[in-house]
Amino acid sequence: MSGGAAPIAVVGAGLVGAGWAIVFARAGHAVRVFDEAPAVRDGVMALIAANLRDLKSFGLIDEAPEAVLARIAVVPTLEDAAAGAAYVQESVYETVAAKRAVYAVLDRAVPPTAPIGSSSSGIPASAFTADCATRRRMLIAHPVNPPYLLPLVELVPAPWTVSECIDATFALMAAAGQEPIRIAREVEGFVLNRLQGALLNEAWALYAEGYASLADIDKTVSMGLGLRWSFMGPFETIDLNAPSGVADYARRLGPLYHAVALSRTAPRAWDEALIARVARERRVALPAAELDSRRAWRDRRLMALAAHKKKTAKDLGS
Amino acid sequence: MSGGAAPIAVVGAGLVGAGWAIVFARAGHAVRVFDEAPAVRDGVMALIAANLRDLKSFGLIDEAPEAVLARIAVVPTLEDAAAGAAYVQESVYETVAAKRAVYAVLDRAVPPTAPIGSSSSGIPASAFTADCATRRRMLIAHPVNPPYLLPLVELVPAPWTVSECIDATFALMAAAGQEPIRIAREVEGFVLNRLQGALLNEAWALYAEGYASLADIDKTVSMGLGLRWSFMGPFETIDLNAPSGVADYARRLGPLYHAVALSRTAPRAWDEALIARVARERRVALPAAELDSRRAWRDRRLMALAAHKKKTAKDLGS
Repeated sequence: MSGGAAPIAVVGAGLVGAGWAIVFARAGHAVRVFDEAPAVRDGVMALIAANLRDLKSFGLIDEAPEAVLARIAVVPTLEDAAAGAAYVQESVYETVAAKRAVYAVLDRAVPPTAPIGSSSSGIPASAFTADCATRRRMLIAHPVNPPYLLPLVELVPAPWTVSECIDATFALMAAAGQEPIRIAREVEGFVLNRLQGALLNEAWALYAEGYASLADIDKTVSMGLGLRWSFMGPFETIDLNAPSGVADYARRLGPLYHAVALSRTAPRAWDEALIARVARERRVALPAAELDSRRAWRDRRLMALAAHKKKTAKDLGS
Repeated sequence: MSGGAAPIAVVGAGLVGAGWAIVFARAGHAVRVFDEAPAVRDGVMALIAANLRDLKSFGLIDEAPEAVLARIAVVPTLEDAAAGAAYVQESVYETVAAKRAVYAVLDRAVPPTAPIGSSSSGIPASAFTADCATRRRMLIAHPVNPPYLLPLVELVPAPWTVSECIDATFALMAAAGQEPIRIAREVEGFVLNRLQGALLNEAWALYAEGYASLADIDKTVSMGLGLRWSFMGPFETIDLNAPSGVADYARRLGPLYHAVALSRTAPRAWDEALIARVARERRVALPAAELDSRRAWRDRRLMALAAHKKKTAKDLGS
């Protein structure tokens, strides 16, 4: 890790932006962080420092936390972050209005060939970059939170994004240890949230119809489906699940899955009555006062899992 | 683990049945295994022995493999397996005709109060137990393969299954270290394959429409969604993903997921042309000749993950 890697601007320093600062600084980049809220700017270095100490304790960074932290600087203006950046990761509040306002500045202030990736999880880049003179270098680079533990990054072009900027962002992310994927064109929810949404919609429907409790539906994933999926994707999983591979599997199981799809052609929205039932059952399982400690538990489990995956990929292959 | 635990019959000794023999023997039960194919009967003990050695090497059994193996006996007739069994796990070939023929014998030969669970992954118990005099003690006990590494078991009653038999099967499975869940009534695909099918249908559709490669869709899960899901279910995941919990999350993201569902109300079957495209891309990623070695890799990764989950649940909580 040399401190000579290209400087990165992180714009928006909530949980997502703070996570990105760790990703880039861990990879050796100088990182300039900006948030329009002074309270966020004042607090973000302490948050990052705490996360770096946790990462160190799980063996997930090689350097001392202070060495990584030393590459991160919080700056007082958006222009300060943008000036001289080789790449910008934008993670501001997810509304079209908020993003448009920031992109109007980035359009002018970021060196003209530097790609600008947005952490937007749902709004496509075309919705907030259309009016930018340099829109050709703007794209979606959607992470999973926190990005320093969940490496996937979805790269989604707007209709005007040039392939050079996709390629440069891909190379930058891969070099930083992330796992970028290329999505051919804009689609609502991109790939990750479409897959998650498909499973969630079925889970909510099964619960609404009284087939199983939330806890039992959760176990179906955490004690079953999710285990293989933590190191293999759904296509590889089914490819290995029939003697002669995926074609064999698809012919055997395809009709069942098509029947499942045909049973859900009148999707029900998650209405307030259903949301209230789900929330009530979850609040019995986990009182609201324990949400924060459970999130800390989740993050420790994710760190332990990341360390496990690193080790088993080395020992057993990936 | 005492050898005094109730004797179990495992009927059908393919990969699934052999896996069940390990689950019950590992928990201290005497296990009698039957398969109608002499070649399967002749080979199953060697397969089980090899799996037990692997489990031992990953720290997943406490006893010597030979001690577990000594509790398993292959018997020459279905009646020999059934006689005196406290529970029967049936894993014969998944057709209604094959199951009906076996259940006609089990109906008479198994002690009348012993529950009989079927490993059927799709056919509901009502389709093959309707004509049995003792159908009230018959149910689905659907595992994930291999059951000694993936603990989930779906318990699904037929309309005539009595709750005492569900409860007894639940208690037996839980005592053996499995994670049973209760499904209220029959539904096509039960819960696990409905959730898997929902995600797979979306994955196949995204691929068919050219949004991403198989490898990139797979990464979305193995480097993103699947990590949390390997230790938390989908409801707990979203409950922790919004500041005030699942209701908050559902109001924010529900409309996006509903839009995803509304975009899929005309589901496309996995037709032969699409299957051929998927198979071609998978066979480039993994030649057919390497399917078996990749399956061995998957099983080692699952063993390492099972050991990791055991340890982190102890160290960090579950």
